[in-house]
Amino acid sequence: MHPLFLLSLLLLSCSASALQDDYCVADLKGANTPSGYQCKDPSTVTVDDFVFSGLGVAGNTSNLIKASVTPAFVAQFAGTNGLGISAARLDLAPGGVVPLHTHPAASELLIVVQGSICAGFITSGSNKVFYKTLKKGDTMLFPQGLLHFQINAGGTNAVALVSFSSPNPGLQITAFALFANSLPSPTVEKVTFLDDYEVKKLKGVLGGTN
Amino acid sequence: MHPLFLLSLLLLSCSASALQDDYCVADLKGANTPSGYQCKDPSTVTVDDFVFSGLGVAGNTSNLIKASVTPAFVAQFAGTNGLGISAARLDLAPGGVVPLHTHPAASELLIVVQGSICAGFITSGSNKVFYKTLKKGDTMLFPQGLLHFQINAGGTNAVALVSFSSPNPGLQITAFALFANSLPSPTVEKVTFLDDYEVKKLKGVLGGTN
Amino acid sequence: MHPLFLLSLLLLSCSASALQDDYCVADLKGANTPSGYQCKDPSTVTVDDFVFSGLGVAGNTSNLIKASVTPAFVAQFAGTNGLGISAARLDLAPGGVVPLHTHPAASELLIVVQGSICAGFITSGSNKVFYKTLKKGDTMLFPQGLLHFQINAGGTNAVALVSFSSPNPGLQITAFALFANSLPSPTVEKVTFLDDYEVKKLKGVLGGTN
Amino acid sequence: MHPLFLLSLLLLSCSASALQDDYCVADLKGANTPSGYQCKDPSTVTVDDFVFSGLGVAGNTSNLIKASVTPAFVAQFAGTNGLGISAARLDLAPGGVVPLHTHPAASELLIVVQGSICAGFITSGSNKVFYKTLKKGDTMLFPQGLLHFQINAGGTNAVALVSFSSPNPGLQITAFALFANSLPSPTVEKVTFLDDYEVKKLKGVLGGTN
Amino acid sequence: MHPLFLLSLLLLSCSASALQDDYCVADLKGANTPSGYQCKDPSTVTVDDFVFSGLGVAGNTSNLIKASVTPAFVAQFAGTNGLGISAARLDLAPGGVVPLHTHPAASELLIVVQGSICAGFITSGSNKVFYKTLKKGDTMLFPQGLLHFQINAGGTNAVALVSFSSPNPGLQITAFALFANSLPSPTVEKVTFLDDYEVKKLKGVLGGTN
Amino acid sequence: MHPLFLLSLLLLSCSASALQDDYCVADLKGANTPSGYQCKDPSTVTVDDFVFSGLGVAGNTSNLIKASVTPAFVAQFAGTNGLGISAARLDLAPGGVVPLHTHPAASELLIVVQGSICAGFITSGSNKVFYKTLKKGDTMLFPQGLLHFQINAGGTNAVALVSFSSPNPGLQITAFALFANSLPSPTVEKVTFLDDYEVKKLKGVLGGTN
Repeated sequence: MHPLFLLSLLLLSCSASALQDDYCVADLKGANTPSGYQCKDPSTVTVDDFVFSGLGVAGNTSNLIKASVTPAFVAQFAGTNGLGISAARLDLAPGGVVPLHTHPAASELLIVVQGSICAGFITSGSNKVFYKTLKKGDTMLFPQGLLHFQINAGGTNAVALVSFSSPNPGLQITAFALFANSLPSPTVEKVTFLDDYEVKKLKGVLGGTN
Repeated sequence: MHPLFLLSLLLLSCSASALQDDYCVADLKGANTPSGYQCKDPSTVTVDDFVFSGLGVAGNTSNLIKASVTPAFVAQFAGTNGLGISAARLDLAPGGVVPLHTHPAASELLIVVQGSICAGFITSGSNKVFYKTLKKGDTMLFPQGLLHFQINAGGTNAVALVSFSSPNPGLQITAFALFANSLPSPTVEKVTFLDDYEVKKLKGVLGGTN
Repeated sequence: MHPLFLLSLLLLSCSASALQDDYCVADLKGANTPSGYQCKDPSTVTVDDFVFSGLGVAGNTSNLIKASVTPAFVAQFAGTNGLGISAARLDLAPGGVVPLHTHPAASELLIVVQGSICAGFITSGSNKVFYKTLKKGDTMLFPQGLLHFQINAGGTNAVALVSFSSPNPGLQITAFALFANSLPSPTVEKVTFLDDYEVKKLKGVLGGTN
Repeated sequence: MHPLFLLSLLLLSCSASALQDDYCVADLKGANTPSGYQCKDPSTVTVDDFVFSGLGVAGNTSNLIKASVTPAFVAQFAGTNGLGISAARLDLAPGGVVPLHTHPAASELLIVVQGSICAGFITSGSNKVFYKTLKKGDTMLFPQGLLHFQINAGGTNAVALVSFSSPNPGLQITAFALFANSLPSPTVEKVTFLDDYEVKKLKGVLGGTN
Repeated sequence: MHPLFLLSLLLLSCSASALQDDYCVADLKGANTPSGYQCKDPSTVTVDDFVFSGLGVAGNTSNLIKASVTPAFVAQFAGTNGLGISAARLDLAPGGVVPLHTHPAASELLIVVQGSICAGFITSGSNKVFYKTLKKGDTMLFPQGLLHFQINAGGTNAVALVSFSSPNPGLQITAFALFANSLPSPTVEKVTFLDDYEVKKLKGVLGGTN
Repeated sequence: MHPLFLLSLLLLSCSASALQDDYCVADLKGANTPSGYQCKDPSTVTVDDFVFSGLGVAGNTSNLIKASVTPAFVAQFAGTNGLGISAARLDLAPGGVVPLHTHPAASELLIVVQGSICAGFITSGSNKVFYKTLKKGDTMLFPQGLLHFQINAGGTNAVALVSFSSPNPGLQITAFALFANSLPSPTVEKVTFLDDYEVKKLKGVLGGTN
């Protein structure tokens, strides 16, 4: 046996058990914690835990907003667990829009890979709007927790790839948060200044009650 | 000289310069960084950097929402810099409301110290609303970045003390973010599903343009 | 069916499983980890997981220090898990005192809501004491890990609400740490410079042995 | 004046100064710190601080490795400062390769947007290699600090967009680290087990000395 | 019963369950998470969970590199879990070397306690090498994720104690990562610029295949 | 010119400015922030910024506690800035003691390199004492913020090397915090339960006033 090979055995034997934690692929059926899911048994991890193919498929934009979001968050892409990053794909048909929303737990970086998108976010202190029409190849940032939106700015399908500073960024779409639940209409009106007519109409449309 | 006193001099001499960082009171005119403001010269720090009296004064609720928020964030209370905590006082006259809002950078803990308050937050995934009428002494949590509100639930003035998991939690009031800026009305409508009439009315009321 | 409703179904279907983590209410019977307890099954979470009523009840001050601390840490208030914040109530009868102590894992923010309190903390480098008599409404900060105390400074009951930059701040009361255990008296004396008489007396009082 | 407008003035006046920190665009000529660069004066920030156009331009692959990396790290894209995310573009001509390298400070998420790429990383404990040929739309993760590579796996140009869990991930290319510096050849040989001939040859090629 | 003793019972009764988390000794057979292992039942923790004797024993240097690394990472020393620190011992016989390696998850601090060691690290941006011959008592830092090495610089056994900024720093030895696995030789050559002869030779020596 | 050399120039030119942040050596005369000091100009950094020789020199134990602490914190060892680690040397003559103290901002790992040391820490919840006599080579952990001590347990000089999970752990020696300042004796007595005689005696010894 070659002596260097002996070395490798010696060195590895002492450290093998300590070194299984380069990653922590989520065991999505296991415990969840504030830092993420418990790790899948390392001996069952394969390259496929680190590869996700869903972002190569166009989302279905045959809906009212003519848009779709395909997430590759930890629930879909278990390998992101503990790595501080995740992704998603945005498809916007002509006229399509991703309505105003926030990600409570992550900043977002968007890259336009097809078409043209008008995107913007609103600052909290001065309610200033930073928005711009982005062309293919342009990258835009949306700081954590701030309201932002994306609108197809051209006449063709637009596609963006977005990444997040967390495996689990969250997604709170304002219109759904306001109208797609059971919060009584008078309360919604009081906390938004919206008219009763508007609130009831959108509750009806989005499936809210009360 | 007592020998133990000698000891104290010896031990202190070696460590004095290393130990000035138990705190980092903000120099609000100095550089700001992702971790907070640069520290004020430690030799000028006094107990008053760690004491704030503003939360003892009732806010002015003579306004349309019959409510006020008095912050003790890092900009008002420089001692919070780097300590991971800050506070605010909520005053709600009868009928008062703190409109729907988020704190992009902190979770909130609210304690009712006078009156009764109906408070709630909306989850992102299922748009579920968790809300409850709180009486004096009740404490409620609002997880980071989620939409929430507070409404006076009684016939008398209500007061709450709130604390945050950051010296700089941010505050984005949804109605202001939507209507108190220059984002063109058609864009607002597209990203919120609201009617043109409603958007223009509230832009007028809240000082927005376009 | 309204087409926007269809949209809401489409968007929600793709993201529901990814978005259950706006919060992580502690399962106190489950695993604990360096980042907090494992999360309770989200489907069993209710608003009551985010509401705590214990801070509305005056603590029992019929004891020698004429004071009590009512914690709303993660063990009492499971909703704080993972949110970076918790709270407690301090009751100080006339003459009452919260003895010198530290919170190893959190900074503290105290607001006086009744009476008057003399509070202070001691810096590590120069052993400087920052202390002040606080009146109702005053707020004071105690940086993480530093020795601090609170003493009723008036002739009436005093109450303070305190919050912490962690769901589990810890509480190490110096006198108990020194005298309420089995560390042999000679060792206590050697590491504190206290007299044998004093150590044995306080060990007797506080239930220490050896 | 409409009374709600009055409200907006009242609320904003109290909070404006506290709320300037939704973001911290890097002042690249200012101080750098362990948490990132000091923030640019918020009053000078525009939407262009959050938009970067460099990733839309193909890199020059007329070089030996037939590849190029176009970074959008904090030094090129100041808006990423403090946001926990950044990006880059990889261009691989036929036969192109991004040599074995690590990012000391970030995990990486790669999305193939054109062509086909064989990518892999090596674990530390067992020196296991996880590698796979990725087609357009496939996403792959590279955990922080681990050696990884990308090779054009097709006969046409390949392009990938990559994002990182830090504004400043770092990039250490192993061959350059070993051979493009002044570390004496005997030392390089001793710490790598490589032959003297090989080390001297590559030092010559890559510009190393000694 | 002494009244102060009564106090101690009163105070402790309210807080006991909240205060079990000063530490989180790893239950190595329990769940692992991104923040570390789940905690061992606190009632079974003893002082021996915080004491490790392995670093007092010289490692076996009867191997080709005439060196050994004895880790006290979380897998060997469960008490380090969640504490942000761990350690190891380096033994270098005359002529011994710790080959070029990285710790993906921690910075390292080395103190020479016997003999003389030449140690260095390579920066990522400019491939600059910082190296120096250290004598007994000298301390050197190796920033997280950067390639570094240690070589016995004298004629006698050298010993160093090293500590890490994580309980689980990881250890990726470059030569093993390159040659002790099944990555095909042509791929290794392509991503390292090494000759086919060299790669195949070292694959043979270190136990690699393909 | 060799074509690979051309490559190195090409690749480096695009990334040089982004890659200067593998480390952030403290500019101790520059701004301090919650994350550490501002970085020294990278072009002036040398290997000596990462090397510290002070721990090789025995501290002066000719004092009452027959002990000394030699810190290598950020104030003494600027290279530790931002790296999450620092160190110190403990010298204990026969009979020597490092009095009860805490590090508010770091966990500690101690390795005995000469002699024998009795070391222990006190938990917060149950005031349990974990202590043990350590021989040469033994390692012990002290969790962040908990009271702990070290006593020479043999008849010869003892030396320990300690490392910390922060470049600036802080050091609060309980006896000095209590008695070496201007906090009035009645206040000290009230918050510690100590007798007036004891407090005044130790204030006299340690240089306290009032």
